Amino acid sequence: MTVRTPIDVELDAETEIAIRQDLTLTALGKRPADTALRVGRLLDVATRTWRHDQEIIIKGRRIAYVGDAGSYPGEVGRRVHEPELSAVPGLGEIHKHIESSHLTPEYEAALVLPRGNTWTCEASHEFSNVNGAKTLDFWLSARAAGSPLKIFPLPGSAVPPTGYEHGGGWFGYEEQKRFMQESLMTAGLDEVMDWPSVWNPDNPSYDRLWGMIRATFERRGVVEGHAAGIRDVSTINAFAAAGLSSDHEAWTVEEFWEKLTHGLFMELRIHSLPEVIAGLLEKGLQDWSQIALTTDDRSASDTLKLGATDYNVRMAIEAGLPPEIAVQCVTINPARHMRLTPWVGSIAPGRYADIVLVSDMQSFAIEKVWADGEPVSEGKTYLPPIPQIDWPDWATKTVNIGRALTAEDFHIKAEAGRSSMTAAVLRPFHWTDDFLTFDLPVENGLVQRDESRNITKFAIVDRFSGKAAVSKMFWLGCGPRTPDTALACSMAHDKHNIWCAGSSDEAMAAAVNAIAEMDGGWALVREGEAAATVRYEVAGLMSCRTAEDLDADMQALYAEGEKVDWMYEPTFHPRWGPGFPERLAFATLTCAPWRWVLVAPSDHAPQGLVNVATGETHPVVF
Amino acid sequence: MTVRTPIDVELDAETEIAIRQDLTLTALGKRPADTALRVGRLLDVATRTWRHDQEIIIKGRRIAYVGDAGSYPGEVGRRVHEPELSAVPGLGEIHKHIESSHLTPEYEAALVLPRGNTWTCEASHEFSNVNGAKTLDFWLSARAAGSPLKIFPLPGSAVPPTGYEHGGGWFGYEEQKRFMQESLMTAGLDEVMDWPSVWNPDNPSYDRLWGMIRATFERRGVVEGHAAGIRDVSTINAFAAAGLSSDHEAWTVEEFWEKLTHGLFMELRIHSLPEVIAGLLEKGLQDWSQIALTTDDRSASDTLKLGATDYNVRMAIEAGLPPEIAVQCVTINPARHMRLTPWVGSIAPGRYADIVLVSDMQSFAIEKVWADGEPVSEGKTYLPPIPQIDWPDWATKTVNIGRALTAEDFHIKAEAGRSSMTAAVLRPFHWTDDFLTFDLPVENGLVQRDESRNITKFAIVDRFSGKAAVSKMFWLGCGPRTPDTALACSMAHDKHNIWCAGSSDEAMAAAVNAIAEMDGGWALVREGEAAATVRYEVAGLMSCRTAEDLDADMQALYAEGEKVDWMYEPTFHPRWGPGFPERLAFATLTCAPWRWVLVAPSDHAPQGLVNVATGETHPVVF
Repeated sequence: MTVRTPIDVELDAETEIAIRQDLTLTALGKRPADTALRVGRLLDVATRTWRHDQEIIIKGRRIAYVGDAGSYPGEVGRRVHEPELSAVPGLGEIHKHIESSHLTPEYEAALVLPRGNTWTCEASHEFSNVNGAKTLDFWLSARAAGSPLKIFPLPGSAVPPTGYEHGGGWFGYEEQKRFMQESLMTAGLDEVMDWPSVWNPDNPSYDRLWGMIRATFERRGVVEGHAAGIRDVSTINAFAAAGLSSDHEAWTVEEFWEKLTHGLFMELRIHSLPEVIAGLLEKGLQDWSQIALTTDDRSASDTLKLGATDYNVRMAIEAGLPPEIAVQCVTINPARHMRLTPWVGSIAPGRYADIVLVSDMQSFAIEKVWADGEPVSEGKTYLPPIPQIDWPDWATKTVNIGRALTAEDFHIKAEAGRSSMTAAVLRPFHWTDDFLTFDLPVENGLVQRDESRNITKFAIVDRFSGKAAVSKMFWLGCGPRTPDTALACSMAHDKHNIWCAGSSDEAMAAAVNAIAEMDGGWALVREGEAAATVRYEVAGLMSCRTAEDLDADMQALYAEGEKVDWMYEPTFHPRWGPGFPERLAFATLTCAPWRWVLVAPSDHAPQGLVNVATGETHPVVF
Repeated sequence: MTVRTPIDVELDAETEIAIRQDLTLTALGKRPADTALRVGRLLDVATRTWRHDQEIIIKGRRIAYVGDAGSYPGEVGRRVHEPELSAVPGLGEIHKHIESSHLTPEYEAALVLPRGNTWTCEASHEFSNVNGAKTLDFWLSARAAGSPLKIFPLPGSAVPPTGYEHGGGWFGYEEQKRFMQESLMTAGLDEVMDWPSVWNPDNPSYDRLWGMIRATFERRGVVEGHAAGIRDVSTINAFAAAGLSSDHEAWTVEEFWEKLTHGLFMELRIHSLPEVIAGLLEKGLQDWSQIALTTDDRSASDTLKLGATDYNVRMAIEAGLPPEIAVQCVTINPARHMRLTPWVGSIAPGRYADIVLVSDMQSFAIEKVWADGEPVSEGKTYLPPIPQIDWPDWATKTVNIGRALTAEDFHIKAEAGRSSMTAAVLRPFHWTDDFLTFDLPVENGLVQRDESRNITKFAIVDRFSGKAAVSKMFWLGCGPRTPDTALACSMAHDKHNIWCAGSSDEAMAAAVNAIAEMDGGWALVREGEAAATVRYEVAGLMSCRTAEDLDADMQALYAEGEKVDWMYEPTFHPRWGPGFPERLAFATLTCAPWRWVLVAPSDHAPQGLVNVATGETHPVVF
């Protein structure tokens, strides 16, 4: 199999009409077609009905014609017949951070295409917070090199997530205007989630965010929302009134229903999917057109284990949703909401020839996938060559601390003459209106951890300024109890500085330095020794290799991590458990709820502890 | 009642965010609202479910909040309670030529709002063929003056309809680019209907049309289709592959189904509605999300008699469609297809406060309508003041023939020495591949009509060039048999030159001159005397007065027309019948089917007879 000429891989209107002019003549049989794919039956998602024994006529990467087998009037280069298989449209992700797969887009394609996912609305605030200016260059590169996964970037509103922090990007009106102008692949503005800055004119991000919304409206794009924790009817109304068109953060059927019936397009993640689907079925919901299923964040390891979009579909079917409706929820529904129906979401003329061939709908057993008019998988095996992309320095040299860190960088100094200090303490995934406080002992002028009370140190290392700026404080119920041990990672949602939790300052410095040396990833230092690393050499978030290779490294990290005694306190967040604290990468989120968090040091918050709803700052010890 | 300050009447992104910033704080109860409209129940069109005893909180022209009665946390200026009425969203027209109402937009509003129609996607190739450059100015004027009807203009692709004719407008890439840029009210490109120029690179309109499609894609607009007569599966595929996203011309359930299942959004007109709805119900269709009901063309007189969008809904319910689905087909479905969901299509925050209050859903009995947050009707009575618009000369002085016509302008000369000539004859609404031929007698060097064989004269008078250019030929089965009688009109789809059918050349000249003198409209000359006129003083298509006033003049015209003996031959077109030949205004359509038609004289077709599929011309007598 050869790499095909990369034409029709980016949407620009001039090329688009040339493609459609050709498709038109092909459909009429006046020009030859490349391929006829004849299938046992085909799901028309517009009507939710099956058409039997159909042929899909393909020209280039697109569908030119669909009709009864043998009805196409023109010449065909190649004929393929799958009499036993059912064809459904390539599955779409309406809201996904590919960065959370930790694969570069060309390897993401190899992972998700065999699982039916042929197009993805990329929620780009992870990469964008690392290198905002290169957002479109990054997300369009793999496709431009011929990768069959269609990535529609939505520049993130959360760049930066709140007005009290900074990273490697800053998006406002002018930036979004440029993104919307530069490529038709840009579908809109991704998940507006800094709710305090949307409603509050005094918030420092207010003008920035509304500027992005304005630029999106100007170019008829979609403004996506993120309404985590927004459950009261008044705020749901306010959220919809602001023009934020969707949400993917509802946890209960009641919350989902209130949002759905207040004009929000609802995107359902697996964490609440079974309960919500069952609840909607119990309500007797007949019209599912304003609902999509989506992934949001899922690591390559989890995708290998569970599946990609196909897993979401399967879970919905298991919750009782008819398979055909489940498919609509990942095809026409998200395509329509995202205004992408001319290109994806149905097996119909003009759309990309992305077809998922299923042997059993109830178990949603995917046998083969076609994309861009070619077979791309058999079983879980990805068939096409993966484009070799030599990611440039702007993508790979993104960890800039400025110098090697030392233990001193992680010291928390006491006031002179004090034998103990009060520490402001955060407990991950257990938000309260205020931070906790603990009295901690002072030794040699430095405030100390207290493993007996589950208190360790947590730091954020600025990886953008080159100033070796470190903010650090005490956290409860997370991190290693094992001595001289630290875990660090350059994925620290959503700005992706480096976070580190450690039982000694030396181990913390060693872990962070290890990450800097390999341009990003995970580093575990155990009892003073380097125990495991995983490279995320692209943006400090992704690796340019196969899911299987990355997973092998992750499994080695987990195995080494098993040998560490991890502190733990149960919280009310349903996805925070004991053991290897992988989810600490999400404990640095500065949104939803907007409370006290630790960010990189800034003029506004020199120690990094800030209430992101109000901007209030506080010393980490006092 | 006073005219309100015209703010929030045009969509521009900068104003839009200011409005939504205010709505957000209003929804939260942090700023006072204007009005609480409490209703017995409210239809949520996203889920097709009813919510009981709801309050709709209004700020300015928009909805800020929807919730259980009494739940809004803020202050409210005015409270209105309609415990017995059911609220559904303002009804939308996805494809309507307001010109066919023959009312200017401010009077159209007064006619259709009491009938539930609060927003209209204006299919502008009638006005645009008269004065293309002023398309947006014209359609946005009434709204800018405060009229509550939201008109979303879609510049017509059919300007001119084919490459073999000309009118008062010419739209290509640059023109559409400007329209898409100038206003967010421009939803896309209206009904691409010159199919021979879409598929055929040799057609003179090919580049013009694809240029308009390109400009629409560039700004993420919707490309509407018109697939009249396209019934074979290959051409349906080609039509969809071309990127034309919809059709409103299906006549049978089979045709409708083929188009619907090939990726076209289907818009259903009343002419085929009962049969199609019944057929779809019989097929067991469960998902109606890709279907809308629409009006296309309906005169003010017919709207007064039948209804507007409400009539379409009622007809669908009578055909067996549940009322709630029928309402979705004129609210959320068209809004979603047209990418207008942030503004119209549901009773939800951020949308215009356009609400139809219904006392009985099965009979769809509309009691009151609100629009822009104010009551606009009780029963059929329109409440607000109608903005007084002094339409400028570019709108009113559009009939430019250059001089008064004489009988000689309508003469059809014979070749020297001939006592008879063969005439190329057209028969309206009974298209054949070729024109008919008849031998006609010559008298005084002029070819003569033959009333005994139902043959009279039909002319097109160019009203744009000022050159007194007249094309004329013989037609079969239409026009007056009464001597010295002629009927003329400045509505001659789709270029709107002046058509005239007459039993004498003198009467034809008199009728056309009468129209020119009054800037457009209808003129009936009977037995040499002016019998009736109706003024369409705006663009020669519309009148700036109430529907009732216009209807009175039309009824007078019909009454005088009754006194004429009209020729008639049955045809296969279902809407062409005996009597006053009002539909001759549509007999000049140059699309669907693309056959021999009479257009204004041009260099290409000096006598005006042209085959618009091939460009072939032919003498009218030979």
